[in-house]
Amino acid sequence: MGYRERSWWGWGHADEALDDAACRRLAERALRPWMPIDGSVIPLPFDPLLGPPRLIPPSIMEETFLADSMSRASHAYGKAFRDVVRALHGELPNPPDLVCMPRTVHDIVAALDWAEAAGAAVVPYGGGTSVVGGVEYRGDRPWVSLDMSRLNRIAEIDDVNRAVRVQAGVFGPALEEALRPHDLTLRHLPQSFEFSTVGGWLATRSGGHYATGPTRIDAFVEALRVITPQGPVESPRVPSSGAGPDPNALFLGSEGALGVIVEAWLRVQKRPSERASAAMSFPVYLEAVAAAKNIVQAGLRPANCRLLDPVEAMLNAGAQDGQARLMLGFEGADASLLLGAVEICRAHGGTDAEKGESRGFREAFLKAPYTRDALVRLGLVVETVETACTWSRFEALHAAVLAAAQAAAPTGVAVVTCRFTHVYPDGPAPYFTIITPGRRGAEVAIWDEIKAAVSDAIADNGGTITHHHAVGRDHRPWYDNERSPLYQDALRAAKRTLDPRGILNPGVLV
Amino acid sequence: MGYRERSWWGWGHADEALDDAACRRLAERALRPWMPIDGSVIPLPFDPLLGPPRLIPPSIMEETFLADSMSRASHAYGKAFRDVVRALHGELPNPPDLVCMPRTVHDIVAALDWAEAAGAAVVPYGGGTSVVGGVEYRGDRPWVSLDMSRLNRIAEIDDVNRAVRVQAGVFGPALEEALRPHDLTLRHLPQSFEFSTVGGWLATRSGGHYATGPTRIDAFVEALRVITPQGPVESPRVPSSGAGPDPNALFLGSEGALGVIVEAWLRVQKRPSERASAAMSFPVYLEAVAAAKNIVQAGLRPANCRLLDPVEAMLNAGAQDGQARLMLGFEGADASLLLGAVEICRAHGGTDAEKGESRGFREAFLKAPYTRDALVRLGLVVETVETACTWSRFEALHAAVLAAAQAAAPTGVAVVTCRFTHVYPDGPAPYFTIITPGRRGAEVAIWDEIKAAVSDAIADNGGTITHHHAVGRDHRPWYDNERSPLYQDALRAAKRTLDPRGILNPGVLV
Repeated sequence: MGYRERSWWGWGHADEALDDAACRRLAERALRPWMPIDGSVIPLPFDPLLGPPRLIPPSIMEETFLADSMSRASHAYGKAFRDVVRALHGELPNPPDLVCMPRTVHDIVAALDWAEAAGAAVVPYGGGTSVVGGVEYRGDRPWVSLDMSRLNRIAEIDDVNRAVRVQAGVFGPALEEALRPHDLTLRHLPQSFEFSTVGGWLATRSGGHYATGPTRIDAFVEALRVITPQGPVESPRVPSSGAGPDPNALFLGSEGALGVIVEAWLRVQKRPSERASAAMSFPVYLEAVAAAKNIVQAGLRPANCRLLDPVEAMLNAGAQDGQARLMLGFEGADASLLLGAVEICRAHGGTDAEKGESRGFREAFLKAPYTRDALVRLGLVVETVETACTWSRFEALHAAVLAAAQAAAPTGVAVVTCRFTHVYPDGPAPYFTIITPGRRGAEVAIWDEIKAAVSDAIADNGGTITHHHAVGRDHRPWYDNERSPLYQDALRAAKRTLDPRGILNPGVLV
Repeated sequence: MGYRERSWWGWGHADEALDDAACRRLAERALRPWMPIDGSVIPLPFDPLLGPPRLIPPSIMEETFLADSMSRASHAYGKAFRDVVRALHGELPNPPDLVCMPRTVHDIVAALDWAEAAGAAVVPYGGGTSVVGGVEYRGDRPWVSLDMSRLNRIAEIDDVNRAVRVQAGVFGPALEEALRPHDLTLRHLPQSFEFSTVGGWLATRSGGHYATGPTRIDAFVEALRVITPQGPVESPRVPSSGAGPDPNALFLGSEGALGVIVEAWLRVQKRPSERASAAMSFPVYLEAVAAAKNIVQAGLRPANCRLLDPVEAMLNAGAQDGQARLMLGFEGADASLLLGAVEICRAHGGTDAEKGESRGFREAFLKAPYTRDALVRLGLVVETVETACTWSRFEALHAAVLAAAQAAAPTGVAVVTCRFTHVYPDGPAPYFTIITPGRRGAEVAIWDEIKAAVSDAIADNGGTITHHHAVGRDHRPWYDNERSPLYQDALRAAKRTLDPRGILNPGVLV
């Protein structure tokens, strides 16, 4: 594969973005019937031209730093709706002054030392796919985006113990490619898989594609190596330890605010040989919810247990019957358990869905962010929100999110779809997509208002502010309400110990 | 069930301890053939008579405190070998000055306030089954043992979401009894089950009886409520959250040094209806190890996968053939997976073991501590040591532990047996039992020397100092070597934030 240019303003590869004509076709075919749009397309942005950086890289490691406008612009934001729309409009008021691209752990140590002395903030950057403002600095200090993508060595593959030692800057596809000849897989497939890194997954506690069992990246971590401004922190490589509070847990989810994760030992597994799947159709959505609950509570562990509500089923799985869909998949030794799950579905009025309608789901899933960018260019406000709650809270939470989104949309019209990305014996992780007409120049304000209303609705109904998108800056107010003040104080004390000058990702975590 | 008196010096119920005649019978029948003992029995200790306490309970909550010698003596130690032998010899140089038995969370808040003012240390005490010096204060301050057993309310059983809200002082049997009418179980059965509490399990990250899957108490925690000297800390009740570092993880394994866990929401599950089990016999021990590895790496999740080495099989499962035993059990939806596991065993030379020989294992497992006490009274040094390591480290670790124990035993003779309590795709949790002749008055010194040698052997061979016995005071030197100094600093900073005067279980954790 040759090098393909990344989009600096939108998702993924620049050449996969829908062009103007494709945007217009999408509008005609898929949107006009149900969404009021005028069909105009926001033009692609000019290449950015930024003011001079406020920092001068240290001369002994000059080649580690980039100061050109394109590098800085492409590290200014993550890939949330509000990021894409701002970049499209050329709004880049606070880009990083420099981009640092270390090749070694020593480079990172040197960069942190230099930043401490220079009074610069340092924002660790994996693949930059944050949708919560995790890589966008909003303070007044000069700042450096610490791009980890050159720390991309897969250092060791341990077939005997099924583990891999990998540097933080390795992207999903490179890791899986290295594991494939060993017939191994990490089996962690976040939607951002192609464009996100191991370090990003660890720092944000990313959720995998699989619905149950070990799916969050946390479950695959044997050991971490972290560089803090005060020095390195390493955890021992053992299958499980009961020695004190889990040392990895302090850094998983710390979003670069406590240290820079540079390497990890991750558990891998044999690639599953068997697969069994079924798609079930449910006339009554809440019966489908009950089926999903009963499947996971029965001790079955489907690899996929993706429940699409009727609107999501129509838009994303091409369902024509207005019914909900439950996509079930079992893998490996569990393949034989599919039958039991299907039986549970039937007991809740589920019937076999038309074969093949969901076949394109995985590809559509991975392409969804490109489509999102096209919708943004068509003037729509389109974003996702996700949470987890107990089963008994779900019905009210679902209704409250729909109502809040519609009430906060300026036109009063918002399409809100819901699917379960993960299911647990004690509750689902619902994932909402919200689409509503925007107003040129007010897109961010419109979304922020909807986001606040929806987040309040989630919090009021017992949901967490994030199941797997992380907190970043956008979720901070709700995160701060969700955790105890004393726990926040304890994290702040840890931060002061590891990063006494507060240079790491300021504004995140504490 | 009427009230049965607990043993103040040894394990469990006083009336289940082996009497002198039973100790002698055990010596004649089971020990004489392979262990040099003289057959004399250390007499039971007199009821303790302690000096006056250095603390006077606050008058407004006087009825919450106990100051009598028996209460204080019974809270002086845990139940490790070194605890039992010291108690047997009447060695109680530093018992708690008072025992505090709060009935409410308010009592705990008041007790902590009072202790801060009085300069007293507070050692949280669940069931007192620590085998690592976790409940024994070794400093100079006056101290209070905070016995949580009156906070024993099962507040809420949530059938829909399969969870239970339970106070920290609830013992294993009471919890299971409350869940049974709902056909639910926590399915967490540490060996101490009968005499340990929910709070103790959480504070020490206890390991359950089950070999794979969710087995450590951590896996069952939805939410915690903790009282620190600075105030309460609560985590939200959600199935899973990606918001920041897992807030529960700071307190799980904190062993009472960061706060007093007072309540938890725990995940429960339906009682498994199906069970399938097999016992396999292996002429070559390392082939049995490979079979256990391959079973768990195949994605099978046996409830039991207890590998007994030949000596353990002989002593604990009555095996007559000098072969290793692998006890396999599958439950619930997984029962059908037994066949695949047995096939893996056959590929490694495993054959069906004689039916019934292992039938008494679970009872023997729960009775083992009483037998241990009898062996102590017969003058033996007898204790267990456990760890976890990767599969490729196991053979050398196993050999090193055996060699270290034998070299450190004064007679050069030590029986060392090994079983796997838990198996993970990346490694086993080996559990060693060490028995060697003691010398009256030198038992503790003999064990401490063996323990140090064995712990060094474990650390040198990539094992953790504890898989599920916790750190307490006995494991501190090795724990401090196992973790990064900066991580310890971060924990210390959290401790200073939550417990600024350092009253909680001083000597533990930091």
